[in-house]
Amino acid sequence: MIMDAAAFTDFLHERIPLVRAMQLRVLVADPHRVCIAAPLEPNLNLHGTAFGGSLAALGILTGWAALYRGLLAVNLADAALVVQRSELDYLKPARGELVAESQPPEAGWSAFIETLQRGGRAGIDVETCIRSRQVDVLRVSGRYVALPVKRRGDG
Amino acid sequence: MIMDAAAFTDFLHERIPLVRAMQLRVLVADPHRVCIAAPLEPNLNLHGTAFGGSLAALGILTGWAALYRGLLAVNLADAALVVQRSELDYLKPARGELVAESQPPEAGWSAFIETLQRGGRAGIDVETCIRSRQVDVLRVSGRYVALPVKRRGDG
Repeated sequence: MIMDAAAFTDFLHERIPLVRAMQLRVLVADPHRVCIAAPLEPNLNLHGTAFGGSLAALGILTGWAALYRGLLAVNLADAALVVQRSELDYLKPARGELVAESQPPEAGWSAFIETLQRGGRAGIDVETCIRSRQVDVLRVSGRYVALPVKRRGDG
Repeated sequence: MIMDAAAFTDFLHERIPLVRAMQLRVLVADPHRVCIAAPLEPNLNLHGTAFGGSLAALGILTGWAALYRGLLAVNLADAALVVQRSELDYLKPARGELVAESQPPEAGWSAFIETLQRGGRAGIDVETCIRSRQVDVLRVSGRYVALPVKRRGDG
Protein backbone atom coordinates (compact mmCIF):
# COMPACT_ATOMS: atom_id res chain seq x y z
CA MET A 1 0.00 0.00 0.00
CA ILE A 2 1.29 3.42 -1.02
CA MET A 3 0.51 6.47 1.11
CA ASP A 4 2.30 9.65 0.09
CA ALA A 5 2.36 12.86 2.13
CA ALA A 6 -0.84 14.26 0.60
CA ALA A 7 -2.74 11.01 1.08
CA PHE A 8 -1.46 10.74 4.67
CA THR A 9 -2.61 14.32 5.34
CA ASP A 10 -6.09 13.50 3.98
CA PHE A 11 -6.24 10.29 6.01
CA LEU A 12 -5.37 12.08 9.28
CA HIS A 13 -7.78 14.95 8.57
CA GLU A 14 -10.61 12.51 7.93
CA ARG A 15 -10.02 10.40 11.00
CA ILE A 16 -8.82 12.77 13.77
CA PRO A 17 -10.83 15.99 14.25
CA LEU A 18 -8.05 17.75 16.18
CA VAL A 19 -5.71 17.29 13.21
CA ARG A 20 -8.13 19.38 11.13
CA ALA A 21 -8.39 22.04 13.84
CA MET A 22 -4.61 22.28 14.09
CA GLN A 23 -4.36 22.46 10.26
CA LEU A 24 -1.65 19.81 10.24
CA ARG A 25 0.01 18.93 6.94
CA VAL A 26 2.22 15.92 6.36
CA LEU A 27 5.40 17.04 4.54
CA VAL A 28 7.24 13.72 4.40
CA ALA A 29 5.70 10.24 4.76
CA ASP A 30 8.55 7.84 4.04
CA PRO A 31 8.73 4.46 5.77
CA HIS A 32 11.84 5.75 7.56
CA ARG A 33 10.90 9.39 8.26
CA VAL A 34 7.76 11.42 8.83
CA CYS A 35 7.55 15.23 9.03
CA ILE A 36 4.35 17.07 9.92
CA ALA A 37 3.91 20.85 9.85
CA ALA A 38 1.42 23.12 11.61
CA PRO A 39 0.84 26.85 11.12
CA LEU A 40 1.17 28.96 14.28
CA GLU A 41 -2.17 30.76 14.16
CA PRO A 42 -4.60 27.91 15.06
CA ASN A 43 -2.05 26.75 17.66
CA LEU A 44 -1.42 29.97 19.57
CA ASN A 45 -1.38 30.42 23.36
CA LEU A 46 -2.05 33.55 25.44
CA HIS A 47 1.47 34.86 24.87
CA GLY A 48 1.51 34.88 21.06
CA THR A 49 3.69 31.74 20.89
CA ALA A 50 2.65 28.12 20.35
CA PHE A 51 0.28 26.57 22.90
CA GLY A 52 1.99 23.81 24.90
CA GLY A 53 -1.03 21.57 24.28
CA SER A 54 -0.74 21.99 20.51
CA LEU A 55 2.98 21.19 20.66
CA ALA A 56 2.27 18.10 22.75
CA ALA A 57 -0.44 16.90 20.34
CA LEU A 58 1.78 17.47 17.29
CA GLY A 59 4.75 15.72 18.90
CA ILE A 60 2.77 12.69 20.08
CA LEU A 61 1.00 12.39 16.72
CA THR A 62 4.24 12.60 14.72
CA GLY A 63 5.85 9.77 16.71
CA TRP A 64 2.69 7.72 16.16
CA ALA A 65 2.68 8.60 12.44
CA ALA A 66 6.32 7.52 11.99
CA LEU A 67 5.47 4.12 13.47
CA TYR A 68 2.22 3.85 11.53
CA ARG A 69 4.05 4.63 8.27
CA GLY A 70 6.69 2.03 9.15
CA LEU A 71 3.97 -0.56 9.86
CA LEU A 72 2.23 0.31 6.60
CA ALA A 73 5.41 -0.56 4.69
CA VAL A 74 5.30 -4.11 6.09
CA ASN A 75 1.52 -4.56 5.82
CA LEU A 76 0.92 -4.28 9.56
CA ALA A 77 -0.91 -0.94 9.66
CA ASP A 78 -4.10 -2.64 10.84
CA ALA A 79 -2.47 -3.19 14.22
CA ALA A 80 -4.03 -0.93 16.87
CA LEU A 81 -1.17 1.46 17.66
CA VAL A 82 -1.54 3.80 20.64
CA VAL A 83 0.66 6.00 22.81
CA GLN A 84 1.38 4.61 26.28
CA ARG A 85 3.78 7.15 27.77
CA SER A 86 5.29 10.44 26.70
CA GLU A 87 7.94 12.76 28.15
CA LEU A 88 7.93 16.29 26.77
CA ASP A 89 10.72 18.84 27.20
CA TYR A 90 9.80 22.36 26.16
CA LEU A 91 13.05 24.02 25.11
CA LYS A 92 12.11 27.43 23.69
CA PRO A 93 8.94 29.37 22.79
CA ALA A 94 7.80 28.62 19.22
CA ARG A 95 7.29 31.82 17.27
CA GLY A 96 6.46 30.54 13.79
CA GLU A 97 5.34 27.49 11.83
CA LEU A 98 5.93 24.21 13.65
CA VAL A 99 7.70 21.29 11.94
CA ALA A 100 7.83 17.95 13.73
CA GLU A 101 10.06 15.07 12.64
CA SER A 102 10.26 11.47 13.76
CA GLN A 103 11.68 8.12 12.60
CA PRO A 104 10.88 4.55 13.51
CA PRO A 105 13.91 3.68 15.70
CA GLU A 106 16.53 1.27 14.37
CA ALA A 107 16.97 -0.22 17.82
CA GLY A 108 14.10 -2.54 18.56
CA TRP A 109 12.31 -2.16 15.23
CA SER A 110 12.89 -5.76 14.06
CA ALA A 111 11.80 -7.17 17.41
CA PHE A 112 8.72 -4.91 17.38
CA ILE A 113 7.71 -6.20 13.93
CA GLU A 114 8.45 -9.84 14.74
CA THR A 115 6.39 -9.70 17.92
CA LEU A 116 3.43 -8.27 15.99
CA GLN A 117 3.81 -10.85 13.23
CA ARG A 118 3.74 -13.61 15.86
CA GLY A 119 0.45 -12.14 17.13
CA GLY A 120 1.89 -10.54 20.29
CA ARG A 121 1.50 -7.12 21.88
CA ALA A 122 4.59 -5.05 21.06
CA GLY A 123 6.02 -1.85 22.54
CA ILE A 124 8.57 0.56 21.11
CA ASP A 125 10.24 3.89 22.01
CA VAL A 126 10.28 6.79 19.55
CA GLU A 127 11.91 10.22 19.67
CA THR A 128 10.31 13.26 18.04
CA CYS A 129 11.62 16.80 17.70
CA ILE A 130 9.66 19.95 16.83
CA ARG A 131 11.43 22.95 15.35
CA SER A 132 10.18 26.45 14.67
CA ARG A 133 12.20 29.03 12.73
CA GLN A 134 15.26 26.74 12.83
CA VAL A 135 15.09 26.42 16.64
CA ASP A 136 14.37 23.18 18.53
CA VAL A 137 11.28 23.93 20.62
CA LEU A 138 10.08 20.54 21.90
CA ARG A 139 11.70 17.15 22.38
CA VAL A 140 9.38 14.18 22.90
CA SER A 141 10.29 10.68 24.06
CA GLY A 142 7.31 8.45 23.48
CA ARG A 143 6.48 4.83 24.22
CA TYR A 144 3.85 3.30 21.94
CA VAL A 145 2.21 -0.11 21.97
CA ALA A 146 0.62 -2.06 19.14
CA LEU A 147 -1.86 -4.90 19.30
CA PRO A 148 -2.09 -7.18 16.27
CA VAL A 149 -5.38 -7.08 14.36
CA LYS A 150 -6.88 -10.32 15.50
CA ARG A 151 -6.24 -9.57 19.16
CA ARG A 152 -7.54 -5.99 18.99
CA GLY A 153 -10.75 -6.85 20.84
CA ASP A 154 -8.72 -7.94 23.86
CA GLY A 155 -7.22 -4.47 24.42
CA MET B 1 -10.39 39.67 40.62
CA ILE B 2 -13.16 37.09 40.38
CA MET B 3 -13.17 34.53 37.59
CA ASP B 4 -15.84 31.88 37.88
CA ALA B 5 -16.03 28.73 35.75
CA ALA B 6 -18.09 30.34 32.98
CA ALA B 7 -15.81 33.39 32.78
CA PHE B 8 -12.73 31.15 32.77
CA THR B 9 -14.25 29.09 29.93
CA ASP B 10 -14.88 32.27 27.91
CA PHE B 11 -11.37 33.57 28.63
CA LEU B 12 -9.73 30.34 27.41
CA HIS B 13 -11.98 30.12 24.33
CA GLU B 14 -11.09 33.68 23.37
CA ARG B 15 -7.36 33.31 23.84
CA ILE B 16 -6.46 29.74 22.79
CA PRO B 17 -7.91 28.52 19.46
CA LEU B 18 -7.33 24.83 20.28
CA VAL B 19 -9.51 25.19 23.39
CA ARG B 20 -12.41 26.14 21.12
CA ALA B 21 -11.71 23.25 18.75
CA MET B 22 -11.64 20.80 21.67
CA GLN B 23 -14.88 22.34 23.04
CA LEU B 24 -13.37 22.56 26.53
CA ARG B 25 -15.57 23.73 29.38
CA VAL B 26 -14.32 24.77 32.81
CA LEU B 27 -16.45 23.04 35.47
CA VAL B 28 -14.64 24.28 38.59
CA ALA B 29 -12.36 27.31 38.84
CA ASP B 30 -11.57 27.61 42.54
CA PRO B 31 -8.22 28.97 43.70
CA HIS B 32 -7.49 25.48 45.06
CA ARG B 33 -8.97 23.27 42.35
CA VAL B 34 -9.70 23.46 38.63
CA CYS B 35 -11.72 20.91 36.60
CA ILE B 36 -12.05 21.10 32.83
CA ALA B 37 -14.28 18.85 30.70
CA ALA B 38 -14.16 17.94 27.02
CA PRO B 39 -16.70 15.99 24.96
CA LEU B 40 -15.31 12.90 23.20
CA GLU B 41 -16.45 13.68 19.65
CA PRO B 42 -14.08 16.56 18.71
CA ASN B 43 -11.29 14.65 20.48
CA LEU B 44 -11.57 11.22 18.85
CA ASN B 45 -8.72 9.14 17.43
CA LEU B 46 -8.83 6.43 14.72
CA HIS B 47 -10.04 3.80 17.17
CA GLY B 48 -13.16 5.56 18.45
CA THR B 49 -11.51 6.51 21.75
CA ALA B 50 -9.86 9.79 22.79
CA PHE B 51 -6.89 10.99 20.73
CA GLY B 52 -3.65 10.92 22.76
CA GLY B 53 -2.90 14.44 21.56
CA SER B 54 -6.21 15.75 22.85
CA LEU B 55 -5.64 14.09 26.22
CA ALA B 56 -2.14 15.59 26.38
CA ALA B 57 -3.43 19.08 25.54
CA LEU B 58 -6.26 18.84 28.09
CA GLY B 59 -3.92 17.56 30.81
CA ILE B 60 -1.22 20.17 30.21
CA LEU B 61 -3.81 22.97 30.02
CA THR B 62 -5.55 21.91 33.24
CA GLY B 63 -2.30 21.95 35.23
CA TRP B 64 -1.58 25.39 33.79
CA ALA B 65 -5.13 26.56 34.60
CA ALA B 66 -4.87 25.41 38.23
CA LEU B 67 -1.70 27.47 38.64
CA TYR B 68 -3.15 30.43 36.74
CA ARG B 69 -6.26 30.39 38.97
CA GLY B 70 -4.04 30.21 42.06
CA LEU B 71 -1.98 33.16 40.81
CA LEU B 72 -5.16 35.11 40.06
CA ALA B 73 -6.20 34.77 43.70
CA VAL B 74 -3.02 36.55 44.81
CA ASN B 75 -2.98 39.15 42.01
CA LEU B 76 -0.09 37.56 40.16
CA ALA B 77 -1.93 36.32 37.06
CA ASP B 78 0.00 38.74 34.86
CA ALA B 79 3.09 36.58 35.32
CA ALA B 80 3.94 34.72 32.10
CA LEU B 81 3.24 31.12 33.07
CA VAL B 82 4.32 28.35 30.68
CA VAL B 83 4.84 24.59 30.74
CA GLN B 84 8.48 23.48 30.83
CA ARG B 85 8.26 19.70 31.10
CA SER B 86 5.49 17.13 31.16
CA GLU B 87 5.34 13.38 31.76
CA LEU B 88 2.19 11.66 30.55
CA ASP B 89 1.08 8.15 31.48
CA TYR B 90 -1.80 6.82 29.42
CA LEU B 91 -3.60 4.33 31.65
CA LYS B 92 -6.73 3.23 29.74
CA PRO B 93 -8.57 4.19 26.54
CA ALA B 94 -11.08 7.02 27.15
CA ARG B 95 -14.52 6.06 25.87
CA GLY B 96 -16.62 9.04 26.93
CA GLU B 97 -16.47 12.65 28.12
CA LEU B 98 -13.09 13.65 29.53
CA VAL B 99 -12.82 15.38 32.91
CA ALA B 100 -9.43 16.72 34.00
CA GLU B 101 -8.67 17.88 37.53
CA SER B 102 -5.69 19.66 39.02
CA GLN B 103 -4.71 21.63 42.13
CA PRO B 104 -1.91 24.07 42.86
CA PRO B 105 0.38 21.88 45.01
CA GLU B 106 0.68 22.59 48.73
CA ALA B 107 4.37 21.73 48.63
CA GLY B 108 6.30 24.58 47.14
CA TRP B 109 3.33 26.93 46.61
CA SER B 110 4.46 29.56 49.15
CA ALA B 111 8.02 29.55 47.81
CA PHE B 112 6.68 29.83 44.25
CA ILE B 113 4.60 32.89 45.15
CA GLU B 114 7.35 34.52 47.22
CA THR B 115 9.87 34.12 44.40
CA LEU B 116 7.47 35.76 41.95
CA GLN B 117 6.70 38.57 44.40
CA ARG B 118 10.44 39.23 44.74
CA GLY B 119 10.62 39.55 40.95
CA GLY B 120 12.29 36.18 40.32
CA ARG B 121 11.62 33.35 37.88
CA ALA B 122 9.76 30.57 39.71
CA GLY B 123 9.15 26.91 38.90
CA ILE B 124 6.59 24.49 40.32
CA ASP B 125 5.42 20.88 39.83
CA VAL B 126 1.74 20.06 39.33
CA GLU B 127 -0.13 16.77 39.01
CA THR B 128 -3.21 16.43 36.80
CA CYS B 129 -5.53 13.46 36.32
CA ILE B 130 -8.04 12.88 33.53
CA ARG B 131 -10.98 10.54 34.06
CA SER B 132 -13.56 9.24 31.62
CA ARG B 133 -16.61 7.24 32.68
CA GLN B 134 -15.20 7.00 36.23
CA VAL B 135 -11.92 5.52 35.00
CA ASP B 136 -8.50 7.21 35.31
CA VAL B 137 -7.24 7.50 31.73
CA LEU B 138 -4.24 9.86 31.93
CA ARG B 139 -1.89 10.97 34.67
CA VAL B 140 0.24 14.05 34.00
CA SER B 141 3.21 15.33 36.00
CA GLY B 142 4.00 18.82 34.81
CA ARG B 143 6.69 21.38 35.58
CA TYR B 144 5.69 24.98 34.90
CA VAL B 145 7.67 28.20 35.14
CA ALA B 146 6.46 31.74 35.70
CA LEU B 147 8.23 35.00 34.94
CA PRO B 148 7.07 38.08 36.80
CA VAL B 149 5.43 40.79 34.68
CA LYS B 150 8.25 43.29 34.54
CA ARG B 151 10.82 40.65 33.50
CA ARG B 152 8.60 39.08 30.84
CA GLY B 153 10.56 40.64 27.98
CA ASP B 154 13.69 38.82 29.15
CA GLY B 155 12.22 35.35 28.66
